[in-house]
Amino acid sequence: MSMKNARIAILGATGAVGLEFLDILASRGVPAENLRLLASARSAGKHLPYGGADLAVEEIGPHSFDGIDVALFSAGASISRAWVPVAVEAGARGGDNSSAFRMNEDVPLIIPEINADAIGDARIIANPNCSTIIMNMVVWPLHARNPVERIVVSTYQAASGAGLRAMRELEAQTRDVLDGRDARPNVFPVPCAFNLFSHDTPIDESGYNTEEVKMIRETRKIFGTPELAITATCVRVPVLRAHSESINVTFSEPMPAEEARAILSAAPGVTVIDDRASNRFPMPIDAAGCDACFVGRIRNDVSQADDRGLELFACGDQLRKGAALNAVQIGDIMSG
Amino acid sequence: MSMKNARIAILGATGAVGLEFLDILASRGVPAENLRLLASARSAGKHLPYGGADLAVEEIGPHSFDGIDVALFSAGASISRAWVPVAVEAGARGGDNSSAFRMNEDVPLIIPEINADAIGDARIIANPNCSTIIMNMVVWPLHARNPVERIVVSTYQAASGAGLRAMRELEAQTRDVLDGRDARPNVFPVPCAFNLFSHDTPIDESGYNTEEVKMIRETRKIFGTPELAITATCVRVPVLRAHSESINVTFSEPMPAEEARAILSAAPGVTVIDDRASNRFPMPIDAAGCDACFVGRIRNDVSQADDRGLELFACGDQLRKGAALNAVQIGDIMSG
Repeated sequence: MSMKNARIAILGATGAVGLEFLDILASRGVPAENLRLLASARSAGKHLPYGGADLAVEEIGPHSFDGIDVALFSAGASISRAWVPVAVEAGARGGDNSSAFRMNEDVPLIIPEINADAIGDARIIANPNCSTIIMNMVVWPLHARNPVERIVVSTYQAASGAGLRAMRELEAQTRDVLDGRDARPNVFPVPCAFNLFSHDTPIDESGYNTEEVKMIRETRKIFGTPELAITATCVRVPVLRAHSESINVTFSEPMPAEEARAILSAAPGVTVIDDRASNRFPMPIDAAGCDACFVGRIRNDVSQADDRGLELFACGDQLRKGAALNAVQIGDIMSG
Repeated sequence: MSMKNARIAILGATGAVGLEFLDILASRGVPAENLRLLASARSAGKHLPYGGADLAVEEIGPHSFDGIDVALFSAGASISRAWVPVAVEAGARGGDNSSAFRMNEDVPLIIPEINADAIGDARIIANPNCSTIIMNMVVWPLHARNPVERIVVSTYQAASGAGLRAMRELEAQTRDVLDGRDARPNVFPVPCAFNLFSHDTPIDESGYNTEEVKMIRETRKIFGTPELAITATCVRVPVLRAHSESINVTFSEPMPAEEARAILSAAPGVTVIDDRASNRFPMPIDAAGCDACFVGRIRNDVSQADDRGLELFACGDQLRKGAALNAVQIGDIMSG
């Protein structure tokens, strides 16, 4: 059975990631009658276009997953904690886009290009954080050839990571500022128009915010390297969708830039944009709406000896490979 | 003699940095009659407000620097190469904001809080690159106590670094995109609205762009550590003014975050904004128009042992401390 023939439930279909789920499933020819869109009472009753059809959003309940093969969750961690077990109990396999189960020992954390084998017969499979996915997509192919010793990453994250309302806030607030009105933050705690700010998730006692901790822990789990040295700084920038990341990697052995470029050019799901002569490198507006993760600025780090250091700059659509596409790929395997 | 009594020539007064020169000099009470504004034939004849006065911009010529004590240059490297020697020949001391003389062995490269002593009796003094100044302002006070072994920096640079026209392009292009029109790049080679891109300076054979090379070489010169291990990735973001930088530093000895915070809190020209509980850290809109460089997200790097690694996030107004203010401070010393 492929996703095309699976009966699929989607929780969170009205959100930014949910709309991408529908776009991807429609483009794959999944028939409307195989889909069940679920939401809390607040969003139930809404209608969403799907191909030529019109799908009603049903209120989630104890029997919502009866007869469902694959349930995709993208409505936040607390909703996932409540309903993923219900879906599994009903016989479905759950693909969860939230952080609820990612670090559970029994739950595989999957990027199909990297560790599809780890899915096995698990009933719950977790989809990693968007920034984790984009970084891992471009670092893993190199790590597989020459183990990574340390990663230093700084992110440039789009508004889309905070949902549709955040994207609309960036647009509306930018217009206000251009028209001479004050910025009025609502979704974000501080102004986002023509500004940037440290990712607005709680800071732990080590001084790292939750987004940074996710990038660190999830990468270790996905790579299967629990002691990997990695540090991250996560920053929100006034870009609508597609995250960017400046990634500094130290390898165990020399990794000349030409070799890295060749490895990345052959890596599935990765597109190299690295034209030094015309100064063309990955940009979020080019990555937006694309399935591939883009990588460029591939060069040996002049601060490290023996070509053991590499600098990379990556962009990936936070809503596609960073969320919905990766989850659909997981769904393909779960229903396979 | 202080700058207040010096006779000052300014080349490039109509540019983004030049207007900041005038603002800073006016706030210090430098009388209008002590100023001579110079430009190429194209800009000559313009008038600029200064305090309550109105200053005419004169066309530059061989006698423009007669009777001048301090000549401040901010009109690009080729103009500086042509006219700084003329100013010096006429008996002025030249403070140059361009890259023309920065790496000349005989020319001191000065951030007054760091290496004012290096000015000596030099006739030409260079003002560092804006990104260099902001990074050095927050790293130097730590380096002075515990030598830096390596720096990995990623920048988030505002449109102001490319001048007034770039700032206006960001505003106009953003309005176009919000209104559904295409982005029409002109000053920048690619769209800047809701986008970011690798700094659009030429890439050398090592794969680094000119802005990155400046940060690396200038820091080594200012710190007096010609072998310092440092790598940089420079990125332009859709922010109007004030650059931000994510800075990862490795020290020779342990540098606990609390110690770093105490050192930076006492550092001249530096303001610590590091409130983990309320998630308040430096932001470019707060730094814009300010003289201080802001630093926060001060935490020990979990990827390095023994607290030898430190993560910092800095913001500084590219036009103030990153350019005009630093040059005026140099002018103070030159005319002292």
